[in-house]
Amino acid sequence: MSSEPTSNPTNATPSTALEAVLVHSVKMPETATKIQGYDFNKGINHQEIVNSLLFSGFQATHVGEAIAEINRMINWRLADEPVLPDDDESDKDPKYREQVKCKIFLGYTSNMVSSGLREVFRFLAEHKLVDCIVASAGGIEEDFIKCLAPTYAGSFSLSGAELRKKGLNRIGNLLVPNDNYCLFEDWVMPILDELLAEQKDKGVIWTPSKIIHRLGERINNPESIYYWAWKNNIPVYCPALTDGSLGDMIYFHSFRNPGLIIDIAADIRAINSEAVYAKKTGIIILGGGVIKHHICNANLMRNGADYAVYINTGQEFDGSDSGARPDEAVSWGKIRLTAKPVKVYADASIVFPMIVAETLAKAYFDGRRGQ
Amino acid sequence: MSSEPTSNPTNATPSTALEAVLVHSVKMPETATKIQGYDFNKGINHQEIVNSLLFSGFQATHVGEAIAEINRMINWRLADEPVLPDDDESDKDPKYREQVKCKIFLGYTSNMVSSGLREVFRFLAEHKLVDCIVASAGGIEEDFIKCLAPTYAGSFSLSGAELRKKGLNRIGNLLVPNDNYCLFEDWVMPILDELLAEQKDKGVIWTPSKIIHRLGERINNPESIYYWAWKNNIPVYCPALTDGSLGDMIYFHSFRNPGLIIDIAADIRAINSEAVYAKKTGIIILGGGVIKHHICNANLMRNGADYAVYINTGQEFDGSDSGARPDEAVSWGKIRLTAKPVKVYADASIVFPMIVAETLAKAYFDGRRGQ
Amino acid sequence: MSSEPTSNPTNATPSTALEAVLVHSVKMPETATKIQGYDFNKGINHQEIVNSLLFSGFQATHVGEAIAEINRMINWRLADEPVLPDDDESDKDPKYREQVKCKIFLGYTSNMVSSGLREVFRFLAEHKLVDCIVASAGGIEEDFIKCLAPTYAGSFSLSGAELRKKGLNRIGNLLVPNDNYCLFEDWVMPILDELLAEQKDKGVIWTPSKIIHRLGERINNPESIYYWAWKNNIPVYCPALTDGSLGDMIYFHSFRNPGLIIDIAADIRAINSEAVYAKKTGIIILGGGVIKHHICNANLMRNGADYAVYINTGQEFDGSDSGARPDEAVSWGKIRLTAKPVKVYADASIVFPMIVAETLAKAYFDGRRGQ
Amino acid sequence: MSSEPTSNPTNATPSTALEAVLVHSVKMPETATKIQGYDFNKGINHQEIVNSLLFSGFQATHVGEAIAEINRMINWRLADEPVLPDDDESDKDPKYREQVKCKIFLGYTSNMVSSGLREVFRFLAEHKLVDCIVASAGGIEEDFIKCLAPTYAGSFSLSGAELRKKGLNRIGNLLVPNDNYCLFEDWVMPILDELLAEQKDKGVIWTPSKIIHRLGERINNPESIYYWAWKNNIPVYCPALTDGSLGDMIYFHSFRNPGLIIDIAADIRAINSEAVYAKKTGIIILGGGVIKHHICNANLMRNGADYAVYINTGQEFDGSDSGARPDEAVSWGKIRLTAKPVKVYADASIVFPMIVAETLAKAYFDGRRGQ
Repeated sequence: MSSEPTSNPTNATPSTALEAVLVHSVKMPETATKIQGYDFNKGINHQEIVNSLLFSGFQATHVGEAIAEINRMINWRLADEPVLPDDDESDKDPKYREQVKCKIFLGYTSNMVSSGLREVFRFLAEHKLVDCIVASAGGIEEDFIKCLAPTYAGSFSLSGAELRKKGLNRIGNLLVPNDNYCLFEDWVMPILDELLAEQKDKGVIWTPSKIIHRLGERINNPESIYYWAWKNNIPVYCPALTDGSLGDMIYFHSFRNPGLIIDIAADIRAINSEAVYAKKTGIIILGGGVIKHHICNANLMRNGADYAVYINTGQEFDGSDSGARPDEAVSWGKIRLTAKPVKVYADASIVFPMIVAETLAKAYFDGRRGQ
Repeated sequence: MSSEPTSNPTNATPSTALEAVLVHSVKMPETATKIQGYDFNKGINHQEIVNSLLFSGFQATHVGEAIAEINRMINWRLADEPVLPDDDESDKDPKYREQVKCKIFLGYTSNMVSSGLREVFRFLAEHKLVDCIVASAGGIEEDFIKCLAPTYAGSFSLSGAELRKKGLNRIGNLLVPNDNYCLFEDWVMPILDELLAEQKDKGVIWTPSKIIHRLGERINNPESIYYWAWKNNIPVYCPALTDGSLGDMIYFHSFRNPGLIIDIAADIRAINSEAVYAKKTGIIILGGGVIKHHICNANLMRNGADYAVYINTGQEFDGSDSGARPDEAVSWGKIRLTAKPVKVYADASIVFPMIVAETLAKAYFDGRRGQ
Repeated sequence: MSSEPTSNPTNATPSTALEAVLVHSVKMPETATKIQGYDFNKGINHQEIVNSLLFSGFQATHVGEAIAEINRMINWRLADEPVLPDDDESDKDPKYREQVKCKIFLGYTSNMVSSGLREVFRFLAEHKLVDCIVASAGGIEEDFIKCLAPTYAGSFSLSGAELRKKGLNRIGNLLVPNDNYCLFEDWVMPILDELLAEQKDKGVIWTPSKIIHRLGERINNPESIYYWAWKNNIPVYCPALTDGSLGDMIYFHSFRNPGLIIDIAADIRAINSEAVYAKKTGIIILGGGVIKHHICNANLMRNGADYAVYINTGQEFDGSDSGARPDEAVSWGKIRLTAKPVKVYADASIVFPMIVAETLAKAYFDGRRGQ
Repeated sequence: MSSEPTSNPTNATPSTALEAVLVHSVKMPETATKIQGYDFNKGINHQEIVNSLLFSGFQATHVGEAIAEINRMINWRLADEPVLPDDDESDKDPKYREQVKCKIFLGYTSNMVSSGLREVFRFLAEHKLVDCIVASAGGIEEDFIKCLAPTYAGSFSLSGAELRKKGLNRIGNLLVPNDNYCLFEDWVMPILDELLAEQKDKGVIWTPSKIIHRLGERINNPESIYYWAWKNNIPVYCPALTDGSLGDMIYFHSFRNPGLIIDIAADIRAINSEAVYAKKTGIIILGGGVIKHHICNANLMRNGADYAVYINTGQEFDGSDSGARPDEAVSWGKIRLTAKPVKVYADASIVFPMIVAETLAKAYFDGRRGQ
């Protein structure tokens, strides 16, 4: 069965093989980064472990790069940019320039708010460390529901049929008792009445972002992300606000007290304006779907975000926007040609806390950002 | 370095190992399905190859199960169910009962319409093989844009910066010239004027589903999915209709001719009604995000869909709704306890055409469904 | 909360936004491929559906490209290449040149043989449509075990503890009764005795590839892949042959009848020779791990494979070889710089049968390849 | 288009919907874990952030569970178990019982050693914190090569063709200059001569594990994992040792100085003995492929590992062993029925350092494990 030709009587190493295997390489530049992991002989220093990730390769390196990218968002000041000839007079004022920072958009999906990341988002909103939030419908309502009753640990393998019989809703390895949604109904229905009354009486045209702020005001609970978003005047967008429990309530409300209108046209102008009039923008997007596209699309209006971090587990091979790499957004003008965007392929529940620790939280405690 | 104890002088096989490896098994039931792939010695019969997948294991088997589940949706008739004591009189009429079929919801994401699946969706709408459609914003506008100019093949690895300079937008391995969106602007702006005029003049409150039908009417092109959806009165829901090119146009329109309102509250009532008043429902969902959740949530209103097929590449480990298995929806009451839902882990661009060939298209040509 | 500056009193559309959104694009070349899916109005033609995939985008297109790449492997003839000055005299003989075809390496993991793909591999070996096989240990033994007793359909969610109590082993959604392994023990033990006797008596140095051929001869069953590999003199490599049930048996045998040596050094020379002395090579690799690396590494010895198709579900983000795109192998010299390799992101159980139907099986029935 | 029946003149909320949405839930037990993330208002405490993951849901929780599972491995002592009637006399000695700990198997793939995890593995070997190692071929040779020259940071999107021309090999987002492999050749060839001489002169039958120990001795460098494995007598198994650069060298060596035999049969007995004679075993497996299966299969010989942690990015849907959940191994008897195994879906480069910090490294500095 030998596939060696009889023409190799001298048993010489095939030269093709030698040449292919022992190709010589160019010299690496002095500045090239060497891969080197954390040396535990130095003891256990958790912060140094996080900082060693940049030099560890694969997604560890992407975590390190995400930290660096967010720190670039934090540290940018208009004051550091050259004054341009066609800047408005007001834009040339050094005092003003020192105050102008990068506008940070934060997006996340519903499951993130179900997870412990909700407390992290609350911190970011509480101290105004981000400037604009985009969430999916569940990403709105689960925050309020958590003010009413807790979400519990479960397991990915619990039987759906058994859980339904018990009224326990599964979200991955979490459980939300259905009574929580009953509590939510009790809380939200009067607010929907109030919205409708204002629509009828004062001609208010409600949009998802206006409703979210009103809910944030009414929950009046410092554990809530949207309480702080309201208090700190951070806009929160959610174009498909009806796609969840709040939608269920709006549906029920349409029978009890019909007529509420929720306009999404005004909100698309509002979020686009967030991007258009910003001097610099950075985007931090956890997860995929509408929240990812919505932030990117708003940034198209200004010919692209300046800084970008995606954290998700999606893959590009099926052409979905959720899985698309940042470079796809560059082709659309949603991220700038000059940006150095980072995608971390990881469940945000693991990596976002450590990234915040080395970026926005640190900047807050350092006094470089937030209030 | 040997880890064998010196206490095994007889060199006997360790009994623990023998017992663990050579455990005896129960007898499999006679009805158990044996795994057996296609035998190419029978010649190349593409249809038999598809039908052999059910017996091939892994996702091939799931493709086979998805075919079976959709055929159950197709073949269900109210006439085959027992008449219940508390049925309305009208519900007892045998003629009526013969006509009542399973209501099929079809959901898909934007990328699917960018792909060749758009022609498949158009066929399903043209012959009224599905009863209700839910798509993301791109899943709406890309259909119209394809009536104006084509989408092209590209590659996943093309440089975003180079493409932006050429005005070519990448969607996975596809390219959409930006001029296509300029053509879309030319086409859609007068229609937005028309909508606004009707709002002002006749008090029409526009919703995403109403706008999609109007666009379908106006495109007047049998290549369009939504032309047929309008013609065949198939409702199409898209709660975040502003999250894409159409949103860009609505944004621009808000400057040129302000005032258009797009209400999502009425649409949540409409889609929920689709589910609530159906005698039986089946859901076919390609991809994740808002379209997946929206169809499932509407079916919660009737205590769950009777039949369900998911086709996507998402994974459950990060707790996202996109990656959730059907059993998670069972815990929420979105799929019935008695259902046998199927998830196919695959890019729908590969498997959906072959699934349609063995289900809805076949039923159409057989006269069992559609018109 | 409005983020619009008061400096836009004329309500003019922001020019940045207009310019960014309505960028003009270059004209696409006439030859650019338009995306167009299968039109079911033409009726249900399964073969045309498969052939439409190339024009459908995303992984459908990759399936189409994989078909084209394998057809390039099939159609290559040395006779079509220019005779080179330093070719051996024997290499210049036109009759010889007409016979010299591309050497095709096929690799697959254990689970593939557990699935219905085993029948497809058997067909390829039976008709000598591939020239060299690399499999993992389970990919060897499961073929023989299937000659002794069947593998059954199961489900991904069956309880491991319940199954263990019944002696049923789960492989994804398949079940293999443990008795099958007991049957395997009965069959293989005498053969191991035979190998050891030949080692002692005749000085045979057994390698994995020699053992696999001996097992193929002994199974003497036309349902077996390796029966045909032996009969058709197709080498089969498996460097980690001990990593599975066969290893369990070799372990037990080492107590009952000690001394068998299985040498992997000779096999690395053998597989490398397969690549080095081939005029042209194509590689078809289903799955990841050692089988993927082993075929690629052998092809490094000839400075790269000429044609390459990967089919797997692995992702590159964690730096694993399993998930690496073909372009990573190009950097190593394992695939040629001039190649147009294809990776299909899909479960091979779905796509490999349809790919074989349009490539190797068709070439067999056309008389272009195989025997 | 309304799908609401005219039979709802009273505009009453459909009762089906109300009942389905507002199902009541059972009371959660007092002991149920509430989901709660890290509160950054407490300041930035990296260790507390890691410890908060257990309560954060999704894969954050799995990281927390992996930490708990490894700590169970660390803390187990035979002394805490009841003495059994049929224990050997020697097994009853309290002093002996206090010393007997859980045997920890550690497995990892090649890419992990290319990454910064190599320094972590070296720490574990240096202090004998694990008892048995299984690696793929690259997982062996890359450690030695790193003693000769560094691996560098690169990017996933570098062109394979450009890199090949420069002799730079890409591994995900890492680069290894090909000169490193030339240095490896210079270093390893004399050792292969030495092995062959001992084979001929002393009748040594080399196995992968013996060769790895010899290489570890010869590298004589405290930066090397296998230097410490040799020094601390930690066995290292690699059944497919020829599948990589070392295999290239063995191939070349077979021409220069033929005859070396590498036996894998003796190693399967050795690794199985590691498991069979252990009082308790724990397995920590990073990545998939042969290393995952090999450790699990060895543990089948003792009817299953007692503790198990998998960290990988594989998915189960394609039936691959790499993606299989621990519960599949339970069905085979590779993990015990009574175990509480954990799978973390993550790139190990991110999570393994923080897991080690809270488990094996802490136990080392606490004096609870290692030397």
